[in-house]
Amino acid sequence: MNYKMVGFVLGRIFWIEAVLMLCPMACSALYGEWNIVLAFLWPALALTLLGILLSHRQPRNTTIYARDGLVIVALVWVLMSVFGALPFMISGEIPSFFDAFFEMVSGFTTTGSTILTDVEAMSKGLLFWRSFSHWVGGMGVLVFAMAILPMTDGRAMHLMRAEVPGPTVGKISSKLRDSAKILYEIYFALTVVEVVILCVGGMPLYDALIHSFGTAGTGGFSNRALSVGAYQNPFFEVVIGVFMLLFGINFNLYYFILLRHFKEAFHSEELRVYLGIVAFSTITITINIASLYDNVGTALRTAFFQVASIVTTTGYATTDFNLWPNYSRTVLVLLIFIGACAGSTAGGLKVSRIIIFFKAARQDLNKMLHSHAITSIRFEGKALDEKTLRGVHNYFNIYMLLFSASVLLASLDGFDLVTTFTAVATCFNNVGPGLELVGPMGSFADFSDPVKLLLSFDMLAGRLELYPILALFSPRLWRKRPVNPLHG
Amino acid sequence: MNYKMVGFVLGRIFWIEAVLMLCPMACSALYGEWNIVLAFLWPALALTLLGILLSHRQPRNTTIYARDGLVIVALVWVLMSVFGALPFMISGEIPSFFDAFFEMVSGFTTTGSTILTDVEAMSKGLLFWRSFSHWVGGMGVLVFAMAILPMTDGRAMHLMRAEVPGPTVGKISSKLRDSAKILYEIYFALTVVEVVILCVGGMPLYDALIHSFGTAGTGGFSNRALSVGAYQNPFFEVVIGVFMLLFGINFNLYYFILLRHFKEAFHSEELRVYLGIVAFSTITITINIASLYDNVGTALRTAFFQVASIVTTTGYATTDFNLWPNYSRTVLVLLIFIGACAGSTAGGLKVSRIIIFFKAARQDLNKMLHSHAITSIRFEGKALDEKTLRGVHNYFNIYMLLFSASVLLASLDGFDLVTTFTAVATCFNNVGPGLELVGPMGSFADFSDPVKLLLSFDMLAGRLELYPILALFSPRLWRKRPVNPLHG
Repeated sequence: MNYKMVGFVLGRIFWIEAVLMLCPMACSALYGEWNIVLAFLWPALALTLLGILLSHRQPRNTTIYARDGLVIVALVWVLMSVFGALPFMISGEIPSFFDAFFEMVSGFTTTGSTILTDVEAMSKGLLFWRSFSHWVGGMGVLVFAMAILPMTDGRAMHLMRAEVPGPTVGKISSKLRDSAKILYEIYFALTVVEVVILCVGGMPLYDALIHSFGTAGTGGFSNRALSVGAYQNPFFEVVIGVFMLLFGINFNLYYFILLRHFKEAFHSEELRVYLGIVAFSTITITINIASLYDNVGTALRTAFFQVASIVTTTGYATTDFNLWPNYSRTVLVLLIFIGACAGSTAGGLKVSRIIIFFKAARQDLNKMLHSHAITSIRFEGKALDEKTLRGVHNYFNIYMLLFSASVLLASLDGFDLVTTFTAVATCFNNVGPGLELVGPMGSFADFSDPVKLLLSFDMLAGRLELYPILALFSPRLWRKRPVNPLHG
Repeated sequence: MNYKMVGFVLGRIFWIEAVLMLCPMACSALYGEWNIVLAFLWPALALTLLGILLSHRQPRNTTIYARDGLVIVALVWVLMSVFGALPFMISGEIPSFFDAFFEMVSGFTTTGSTILTDVEAMSKGLLFWRSFSHWVGGMGVLVFAMAILPMTDGRAMHLMRAEVPGPTVGKISSKLRDSAKILYEIYFALTVVEVVILCVGGMPLYDALIHSFGTAGTGGFSNRALSVGAYQNPFFEVVIGVFMLLFGINFNLYYFILLRHFKEAFHSEELRVYLGIVAFSTITITINIASLYDNVGTALRTAFFQVASIVTTTGYATTDFNLWPNYSRTVLVLLIFIGACAGSTAGGLKVSRIIIFFKAARQDLNKMLHSHAITSIRFEGKALDEKTLRGVHNYFNIYMLLFSASVLLASLDGFDLVTTFTAVATCFNNVGPGLELVGPMGSFADFSDPVKLLLSFDMLAGRLELYPILALFSPRLWRKRPVNPLHG
């Protein structure tokens, strides 16, 4: 492993985090929360210092191999969360390390699960930082680094592959750095549009920023205890609902639209299945819950918002869906696992993997019935190669093993099965709320510290699509071995 | 498709079922239940008549292709359950078709889920038939047919592959017919040994037969409302517990022992992992439930029995484990999915698949870390070929899709999530009891008719390992097409 280069990239990321902390500091200063400004100052200084130490000089050998990429991504996300948690602890608003780390991991991984029981008692600056971390984590901090730092394609690709979700990485530009820039520009523009629309609708700028960060990153942190439901405003509900859906779409499609390749954009198989899932879930839930609401319109709007929120793994709520009838609750639990499109900011398995599962199942059955049938799986108009298919199968395999092990360990806390199961599911898929104790009006405060650490691990594993985080735990990685300059 | 041959095999199986019905008729006669004898007489006559109609003459073309094998197996299991349900309806003891069909499918698939709320009010003859169907379904009725009917290896292989559970079919003899005979001889002998031991311990012969059928087939139907717990007898508990474990072992290993190949038998990787899972689950559950029982010994015995019962997918109970703390309940739910060894009478995913999942995950991670590492997966001392591995992945893929769809549909009945989830899980994996309403002291009586039909479908899909039952629903299968004499 190229330790020097790992340290160099880490150092650069520490600088970036220090700069990012200026935003919540400015926010705190605006609201006169001087103790919060101080709580950010020390971690920011520490990050700057560490950054200088680690990356004052570029190492001679700048090669990054695949496993270096995995390790860098994993370390970046863990350490950013550790440093990001410090202001919460220093300010005393979240004194426990396990709680603060959980909250920050939940922020960066765009999960939105919280250990806070009274969010409205928090300072403006810290709530801003919490939500801002959604926005940073949504598109990926290394993608951001690639957009602003000079990097060659070779090493950038390993980082991109490890950080961007989905079974395949689409390069939308011949240069990865340009791709990263374009993605961040689209991301930034869409966020600004949402902020403006919410402000025009009458939401205070601070609240509009918080909820736009949460929507864009498909995170789900709110500054209101009742989440988006606090505003009792159908306009906000519809706007945020639609924007959640938009941020669940593969960003490459927006690039196609920018290039006026409308046909390519709207012919996306994944997009159509994604919208189909949303439509099916919204309609059947509306029928299921109609009697609970004043009229069908309200039921439809409420159903749409929660479906959009869960399928995009955002996690905002305008109603306590924990109280819904069981068919609707079951649909939501299934949506937690499905997630939105690959190449978006959403978590979950991703719609494209679900499509591939169905197609692989059909192909397998056809092979069984007609042993001589030569069939290949086509996805998005192209034949799927054996390697991608095996990758999707392996991913699901590891996903289920990790998920089951997490449920088993989390059950040691003794909470009821639905709480335990949905807590792990919602963290692992980066959604936010689950059911029962961890429902949209509940919190993760009551879990023990070891389980909070486990759930933090699950959030990171889910956001980074397993491999980087698992790589950290691989004994083979750290074992000393004769260095082979060719194979690293 | 070779329709004539499909009909011919079906006819033969109908004869066999008619002959099998003589056993419960004899039992009814012994207990003087003449109305029950009559209730069996008409279905038995109908089966004999149908058998004559369909298979009085062997068709000239006796070739069975792979898909013919799938269809035969699926039709045999569905139709045997339909005819097997008739005595329940005719006698009036289970008047509804959906209930009687559910109960009979649960019997043949060795699930052991019941719609009966007062099992002790049933006649002896019908309870005998219900448990006897476990014994018949455990080893497989077509395997039985192969053992007693003259069949060439070519066509028998397709049937065997479709009916015997596990990722690979081990031929223990060079002739399939001999293999089937040996398997049934071992099965029969083990069952007799259990009956004798239980009788020696003081159990009435009728009860001993019922519980030995349930143990051998890993079914779980009892003639007592409190299941094995009704006897309050530690001796029965230990004997049945150990025999459940024995019937969860791959029968090929018994054959090795008969041949005095002890080394091969005890070096089985699957066996060791299977026993490891039992030991781990028993010990951790004992610790978790120790405070609920008089002493650690009782807790250990109780934990061992329920673990053996669930991991072998039998489903007997000596305690209401629905009332256990949540860690123990979670372990049991995971065991429902794992199941016992391939090539045994148990359901579930099978331990061998779980081992392959873990090894595939490790290999995948190693590949990611060392792109040049050439690694192959070894299982039971042999390198696993790509085809078997893909088969295991595809199986899990279809398994999860069907499972999720079933949970979604079953949730329409509106029961709580744990009831719905575990009801589907326990039926799909052929275990028997689940948690909450379908716990070991509950029943499936309250589900609606459509959901009972769905769960019957799940039981069949689980027992036959998906493909045969799915083949029935494939439009491609039934579509008329130009006959290609070579490819069928």
